[in-house]
Amino acid sequence: MNEEIVFAERKSVEQVEEGVELAPKFDKEGLLPCVTTSAESGEVLMLGYMNQLALTRTISTGDAHYWSRSRKCLWRKGETSGLRQRVIEIRIDDDQDAIWLRVSIDGDASCHVGYRSCFYRAVNTSPERGKPLLTFVEEEKTFDPEKVYGDAPNPTQL
Amino acid sequence: MNEEIVFAERKSVEQVEEGVELAPKFDKEGLLPCVTTSAESGEVLMLGYMNQLALTRTISTGDAHYWSRSRKCLWRKGETSGLRQRVIEIRIDDDQDAIWLRVSIDGDASCHVGYRSCFYRAVNTSPERGKPLLTFVEEEKTFDPEKVYGDAPNPTQL
Repeated sequence: MNEEIVFAERKSVEQVEEGVELAPKFDKEGLLPCVTTSAESGEVLMLGYMNQLALTRTISTGDAHYWSRSRKCLWRKGETSGLRQRVIEIRIDDDQDAIWLRVSIDGDASCHVGYRSCFYRAVNTSPERGKPLLTFVEEEKTFDPEKVYGDAPNPTQL
Repeated sequence: MNEEIVFAERKSVEQVEEGVELAPKFDKEGLLPCVTTSAESGEVLMLGYMNQLALTRTISTGDAHYWSRSRKCLWRKGETSGLRQRVIEIRIDDDQDAIWLRVSIDGDASCHVGYRSCFYRAVNTSPERGKPLLTFVEEEKTFDPEKVYGDAPNPTQL
């Protein structure tokens, strides 16, 4: 595993937008957002965050790593659930402050609630009386989260 | 235009994850990230941010609205460039702190640099000597940004 990954210094807009150096911009908390899609279906599976180490590990191991904001630790996706994400392609956006990961997933699911994608609900765009309701786009869970996660704390925060 | 959209109060993990009420969680700066994909190709076009008003306007008008962090203003995508994004579907994730917009775009491009997607470069995952290089996945720009944006300030920040 090559952990000696060096990011380039951000010197100019032209270098960042039109260049071939990887010069990511992490926010004040040292994170950047990462959109993860299924390389097979194209579906958006989740939106996670990466710090410098998570991005380095993702590049060097080929397995998706994130920074867990709720657990405050580096997190190899699937280390608890087995639902590992193998990197097919890593893309970066124009100003290099967001990542798009295309992955192949073990077990055909990504969401801790049990659905294939974390985005299993759609917002009704013609709300009556101003309260938009959600519709379940995935009708059934892919796995039983209790069996997979046991009594691990739920990462959702109010 | 119905601007009377009311978000539900976040009361429990079960309500947020398994319910049908729209109860989005905005971060300390009042924003949540939004992944925007092409409804036709499935490609990730951009990652933007929405505040409460941007999400409300997106729902009520059917046109994608974002909060511009560099210009610090509400931004209807396409108001300068004409590259409007018409909402086909709005999805929200398990803990309701991220949005996935599926859009149809006018003009077949979304990126201020001139490419179809903001994610026009891939990261080489087998770096030599620890410095990963980027490869252009889109070979040609779709439009000339100077013609479209004129001398409007570039939103990329170092």
